[in-house]
Amino acid sequence: MQNFVFHNPTKILFGRNTVSGQETAELGDKALLVYGQNSIQQTGLYEQVLTSLSKAGVSVVEHGGTRSNPLLDHVRAGIAKVKEERINVIVAVGGGSVIDTAKAIAAGGVVEHDVWKFFIGKKSIKAALPVLTVLTLAAAGSEMNSGMVITNQATQEKFGFGHRLLYPKTSILDPEVTYTVPPDYTAYGAVDAVAHVLEFYMTTQDKDTPVQARFMEGLIHNAMESCERCLRDPHDYGGRANLMWTATLALNGLIAAGLGRVGFPMHLIEHSLSALYDVPHGAGLSVVIPGWLQWYQKQDAARIARLGRNILPPAEQQKLEGENDAVIAERTIAFLRNWFIQINSPVTLAELDIPAADIPKIAENALALARVWRLNQYTQPVIEEILNLCR
Amino acid sequence: MQNFVFHNPTKILFGRNTVSGQETAELGDKALLVYGQNSIQQTGLYEQVLTSLSKAGVSVVEHGGTRSNPLLDHVRAGIAKVKEERINVIVAVGGGSVIDTAKAIAAGGVVEHDVWKFFIGKKSIKAALPVLTVLTLAAAGSEMNSGMVITNQATQEKFGFGHRLLYPKTSILDPEVTYTVPPDYTAYGAVDAVAHVLEFYMTTQDKDTPVQARFMEGLIHNAMESCERCLRDPHDYGGRANLMWTATLALNGLIAAGLGRVGFPMHLIEHSLSALYDVPHGAGLSVVIPGWLQWYQKQDAARIARLGRNILPPAEQQKLEGENDAVIAERTIAFLRNWFIQINSPVTLAELDIPAADIPKIAENALALARVWRLNQYTQPVIEEILNLCR
Repeated sequence: MQNFVFHNPTKILFGRNTVSGQETAELGDKALLVYGQNSIQQTGLYEQVLTSLSKAGVSVVEHGGTRSNPLLDHVRAGIAKVKEERINVIVAVGGGSVIDTAKAIAAGGVVEHDVWKFFIGKKSIKAALPVLTVLTLAAAGSEMNSGMVITNQATQEKFGFGHRLLYPKTSILDPEVTYTVPPDYTAYGAVDAVAHVLEFYMTTQDKDTPVQARFMEGLIHNAMESCERCLRDPHDYGGRANLMWTATLALNGLIAAGLGRVGFPMHLIEHSLSALYDVPHGAGLSVVIPGWLQWYQKQDAARIARLGRNILPPAEQQKLEGENDAVIAERTIAFLRNWFIQINSPVTLAELDIPAADIPKIAENALALARVWRLNQYTQPVIEEILNLCR
Repeated sequence: MQNFVFHNPTKILFGRNTVSGQETAELGDKALLVYGQNSIQQTGLYEQVLTSLSKAGVSVVEHGGTRSNPLLDHVRAGIAKVKEERINVIVAVGGGSVIDTAKAIAAGGVVEHDVWKFFIGKKSIKAALPVLTVLTLAAAGSEMNSGMVITNQATQEKFGFGHRLLYPKTSILDPEVTYTVPPDYTAYGAVDAVAHVLEFYMTTQDKDTPVQARFMEGLIHNAMESCERCLRDPHDYGGRANLMWTATLALNGLIAAGLGRVGFPMHLIEHSLSALYDVPHGAGLSVVIPGWLQWYQKQDAARIARLGRNILPPAEQQKLEGENDAVIAERTIAFLRNWFIQINSPVTLAELDIPAADIPKIAENALALARVWRLNQYTQPVIEEILNLCR
């Protein structure tokens, strides 16, 4: 196990009827309410949050309209409101994009310089406003970590970073809030959680980490099982609850602690698909994962086989007894791919209407990010090779 | 899943050479150093800690001599030093008993009334001194939770409670520090971790908690596997590291979050063994666990069988295919019992030199605690029945 520091101070309120303005009142009395398009108005959550904040004596300035792959301009507009209205707490009601936006506003709202300087490393964070989140989508994990990703449209940069002052103070996770998430986004969220776990599992620097490995194998099991429950019955409380907690634990730092240096190569390639074709993140990931694993198998079939020995159904495992790692790895990749198909998440570039002829262009885009992330193994030919396995 | 609040603010520094006075200096400049008998002097850790504290500009008042099943009088003596010497940080170097003592001193050091009033519910905690721990034994989990157990010799009461202000601010977990833990205490520590997990796993109010269940099954696997490694080679860093992190995660609140009400019936009975015969906690637990499971099997063989389906070796699982829960539960209990035997932890009262004739007396002692813990199912005849299965 590699040395690590684990320190996650976010308070989680999990369960039915946990949405409460009182928690916000403990952090501040004038809130910037960050949210997305209009789904929270449709579901009634918007009204519920406003009423409970008002009851708790918290006044509210609205900042709606966050879109997926959230934008720097929208962050800057939020920061302007913070300064003008003397906001002292940020309340994010939404999924990963909304929460990421709230974190960036929390950091930018207490300094005079432009917030982008934090992203490009010209300034470092010394303070931030407190952030409270009300999660509406089991997927990104931003509700219990310190990271965020924001896109600067002017410079065409999509940059992310994290800082310990940006952990949400409190995150409210009410599984019932996600009853209205449609089947496609329920599936994409589960894929995102699976992808986070797989990135750590596959790229870990240190494999003498059975504590983390078993935790991760369990989380993949849980993501699959609970997603299936939610698709069968969107109002299955246990399904929604287990999927929500799984997605949070997949990226709160715990499974990564002790692994040493890890990379996010599948996210690297998916970033380009989202950036160039505006495909949903989870849909892009279910295309990239099987192709990347197919490519990675040549490097470390044993690791993929270990995963298979722990997540394949017992009957399959018995059939595979005595087989070598390559065979079991192959079967594991097929198992994950078939599962993506089963939950109606795409598994080929063609399903995303991305022509094979674009592969060099996508690889070029991904290469730029590979340099930023220092994933030096991912050269243009390597990325093209992987993308060809995703056709 | 049941509603829960999860909020664990302890910062963990894990790994080689993490013992540093600097971490203490961030919390205070005058430390009370709490430690046990004299093992830390023998191993050199005492010198190492004192030197690093001195380098960091932290002055030290010593408070050694904490014994297992730590005593109220020793806590009170520490509190007197805190007040007299204007201590502003408590540094605990030891295992669960030392850390529990440090927490009680931290709470009692900032109030005028006697610290025992917190334990009997006459006063509630409003503040506490910061606690930093340097862990020397993988077992109790006190390094990342807010609980403690202290014995009042005058009243013959052994009481425990927890408070959110008593989470250690920082815990330093250096697996190399545990290289010198002898085989018997290495084994007892692993048994303690297994017992913590089993209590939650078996007594959970809500069984629609696969996230927690899979995490727990993984931790039991890890405790067994890493303990075996440490017994084979006390200097196996990976073995020590995985055992240490497993024991911490077994009782830091994460696996319990969402289970609803849980009980600690195995600890209930073991408490009496320790209190009456001064047996090591882990040794008592390995006697109680198989007997308790044998008794519990009549109530919920399905739960024990679920555990078996996930922790029994694959070859055994295949042999058991098609068998009913009772058969698999029986096999699971035998598996755990055999493992305790394998690591030289006792599995019968006789091995602890406790005569069967004492069973009514032990049950009477445990009954008193059952009332405090509100484990109403545990009447005198029930406890006697369980103890008879531990003979």
